Parts: sequence; structure tokens; C-alpha cells
Amino acid sequence: MRNVRVKVAYDGSEFFGWQRQEGFLSVQEALEEALEGLLGEKVVVHGAGRTDTGVHALGQVANFHVDTRLDDDRLRHALNAHLARGVVLRRLETCRPDFHAQYDARGKRYLYLTLTTRFRSPFAPHLAHWAPQSLDLAAMRRAAQCFVGRRDFKALATAGSERKTTVRTLSAVRLVARRERFAVVVQGDGFLYNMVRTLVGTLIEVGRGKLSAEDVTAILASRDRRRAGPTAPAAGLYLLAVRYAEPCFAGADRGPHGAPGLFGDGG
Amino acid sequence: MRNVRVKVAYDGSEFFGWQRQEGFLSVQEALEEALEGLLGEKVVVHGAGRTDTGVHALGQVANFHVDTRLDDDRLRHALNAHLARGVVLRRLETCRPDFHAQYDARGKRYLYLTLTTRFRSPFAPHLAHWAPQSLDLAAMRRAAQCFVGRRDFKALATAGSERKTTVRTLSAVRLVARRERFAVVVQGDGFLYNMVRTLVGTLIEVGRGKLSAEDVTAILASRDRRRAGPTAPAAGLYLLAVRYAEPCFAGADRGPHGAPGLFGDGG
Repeated sequence: MRNVRVKVAYDGSEFFGWQRQEGFLSVQEALEEALEGLLGEKVVVHGAGRTDTGVHALGQVANFHVDTRLDDDRLRHALNAHLARGVVLRRLETCRPDFHAQYDARGKRYLYLTLTTRFRSPFAPHLAHWAPQSLDLAAMRRAAQCFVGRRDFKALATAGSERKTTVRTLSAVRLVARRERFAVVVQGDGFLYNMVRTLVGTLIEVGRGKLSAEDVTAILASRDRRRAGPTAPAAGLYLLAVRYAEPCFAGADRGPHGAPGLFGDGG
Repeated sequence: MRNVRVKVAYDGSEFFGWQRQEGFLSVQEALEEALEGLLGEKVVVHGAGRTDTGVHALGQVANFHVDTRLDDDRLRHALNAHLARGVVLRRLETCRPDFHAQYDARGKRYLYLTLTTRFRSPFAPHLAHWAPQSLDLAAMRRAAQCFVGRRDFKALATAGSERKTTVRTLSAVRLVARRERFAVVVQGDGFLYNMVRTLVGTLIEVGRGKLSAEDVTAILASRDRRRAGPTAPAAGLYLLAVRYAEPCFAGADRGPHGAPGLFGDGG
């Protein structure tokens, strides 16, 4: 049996999240259906992590074991032909037999896209958050640095998802603005439930002048979710990349860009 | 009665074209419904030109006569609040009583967006055409110049739409490429039915090496639709702007950008 890993892009509005659940089409199920359609047998797909309904991915990673004589390139093409709309395999490669997309993941990078146009865009409202206010980007950039480092992020986590520890390390929180949109790119070793969306919701409150950088530091210290900003909508969130200790998907990536009007290619 | 003109953006995939037709939601009907919802009376909206199902607009222009004490800004905000999803008024201004969006139009500018990513994008396939081939952009640029000027464009017009003359003047056909997408921007005094989409379909044949610039000149001279390339899909086409002899919508425009990943703002 070959162990195969894939880099997956999907439009989260087409699926009820990543994880398989009876009666609701998930990305995992779409991939498993494509594999069964192509190979005639059930295959379990392991994702690097779950994404919620409405959350997109440019670089989700998953792995699965298959027995096929198709080489990597042909297998990817054949699976893409079998896949439901809204999801595409950008890369596919055979990997070491014990690689596991979830257990071997060392970190993730997310992008949160917000449009600040005066009027709502008539185009693809499911692909970005819309915040028509004029925002103080300089203040947001300063506040963004308060999240960087090894910290207790309990104040940013939606309750009911108790993990052993709420301490995580964020290595970067960058704000990239162009014309009437901006992206918050967050990189870290792990994330609590709704953490990126609440981080962005809190930054937007800073941009509106309702919170300061000092408030952000105090909010984190409080470990109190009620003091942080609102959870920003799923529509703006993209899982850009998953990081592993080993190099994965080396070489140029001619995957799908474009439609969401992002800043990076999400490689 | 005030005569009001508006600049309208819409996602063509949400409507059955511009023009009102019984039982199918058109952009015109959406605007007229919003006006009736706000003002409590039927108002006829005149568009600069029709667009087909699936064709988008960033700068369609329309006018209508209303009797209201709301100033321009408030009227626009109120109408946007009443409008169906997928359409938004970017600008609104009171104009001279005899301005007519269609009869006074002097020209139009269209943009046709094509993605050349190796794999189809999972995001918003209704907002761009996808041509995964590697295209010779230099050859396409040369061929694009063959369309510029006052010419008989009968070879690019879908039959069954006989106008008095098939002669039109194109003042510019530009090709703007960035990463794995390109836009063809076409500006002219008037357009035959499906003319921009067939022009783009023909240019893509040039990019594939199936036609040369000389072939394009010969195709135009033949006035034979069967010799031109295929009609490119509606999804890639955007009505960017309508030109009038008088200045319209002066000043900065903070309208909707973003989602379709366009090159210009379509102002």
C-alpha cells in the first residue's frame, strides 16, 4: 500500500466543514468518494486538521493509503476528475509509509481576508468578510504584535472545546493591506477553536478605536473570552499551509489562485 | 420628477441577464423592485445596454425618474438596503432631466477575465473563464491589434441579431496578464451580440497556436462567423464602464472591488 499525501484547496461554502458527518457533505467525504469512485474501494482520508463550515483552504494537507499503479501525476488528475465542485487537489505525492497529516503537523498558517469597500461587494460574499468601516491599520499592526509569542490564548477560544492547555505559540501575525481590502496572516504551532477568527475580530475592534494594543494585552492576561472581540465570520478564513518537519510538495506549485483576490499564493 | 442615474455592479450568475422577463429574475427587475419597495410606486429603469445571463458588471449605468425628498446619498443607501443580493449601486446622482442611459451612451468598456491555472480553481468558477492551456500571450497581443479601428465585425457576431450595420469602432483591445490569469480589455463605440466573447474566444485560439494574427485579419474580412473562434463563456465577461459625452459620476469611487481578482477598478 502506498501512502499518499495531498495539498487540497476548497471553497468552504460548498461543504459542511472538513470532517465527515452523516447527511452533510464534508470535504473529507468528497475526497473519500472520489477515491472510492476511482479505485472501487473505501479509503480513509486523514486531514491535518478540521475546518468549520464556510472556512476555506488553499493548502490543507491530507494523507491516505492506496493500492494503485497510477503514478502520482495520473492519480492526481484522475482524482480531480472525480472530485465534487469546490475542491481540487493542488499537489499529490507518495510519501514515507508512516507519514500522518495530522500527527506530523508542526504548525499552520491562516489568512483572514476582509473587504473594507464602502458598499458590500456583489461578487462572492462567501469568500471574504466585509467591514465597511474605516479602520486604523497602524493601530491594528501594533496590536497584532501583542499576539506574537508563546502565550495563553484562552481569551480567544470559543468555550466548550477544552484542551489540556490553552497555551500556543504564534510565530507571526502580519497585516497586509492593499486598496480596499486587508489580510491578516497568522502563523503558529497550533490553534484553539475559533482562535484566528476571534483574533481578527479583536483586531477589527482595535481598528475601530474600540480597543487599544494595551487592551489586547490585558484581554489575553484575563483569559476571559467575553472581553475579546467578536468571532469574525467564517467566510474570510483560509487555511493557507500546514508545516511539517520534512519538506513536502517541493518545487513550483501551479495551483489555483485568483478568484478570492488574495495576496499570496498560499503555497 | 427627478432624473437619477446610477452606476451598478452585479454578479451575473445571480440573474437571468439585465432585461426584465416574466418569471426570471433580471437585474432590471431587481432594481425596479427595490425602487417600488422604497418609494411605493412602479418606476421604470433604463439600462445603458443589456447583458446576458452570467455576464457581470462593475460599471453598468442606468437611469430612472423618481419623486422623493431623499438626497442622492440617502437614496443610494436606502436602495442598496432594498436590493437583492448580487447587485449593488456604486454611485447615484441626480442628472439633467433628459439624460437617457441607453440613447446617450457613446461607448462601452468590457473586461474578460481568464484563469490559466493548471487546475480549475475551486473558488467562484462563475466569476472567470478557465483555460488551463499554456498560451502565447505575445502572439495574442499582436493579434489583438487586428481588431482595433473601424471595422466590419460581422464575423464575431452571433447570427440572428441583425442590426442595420455590423461596422463598429474599437478604440482599444488590451491584454493585461498577471501570474496565472489574464484580462482582455475591449473599448468601443458599440458591440454586436456576443462580439466580445467571440473576440476573446478567437484570441485564445491564437494563444494556442491554432490561428495567427494574419488569420484574424482574414477572418474579419470574410465576415463569416464560422471561421472565428468559439464564443468564450459568459462567466469571464464584465461590463466595466459606459462612456457618455458629459462627465458622469465625477470624483473618487469607493465601490466594490476585490472578489473577482480583477486588474482595474472598473471605474
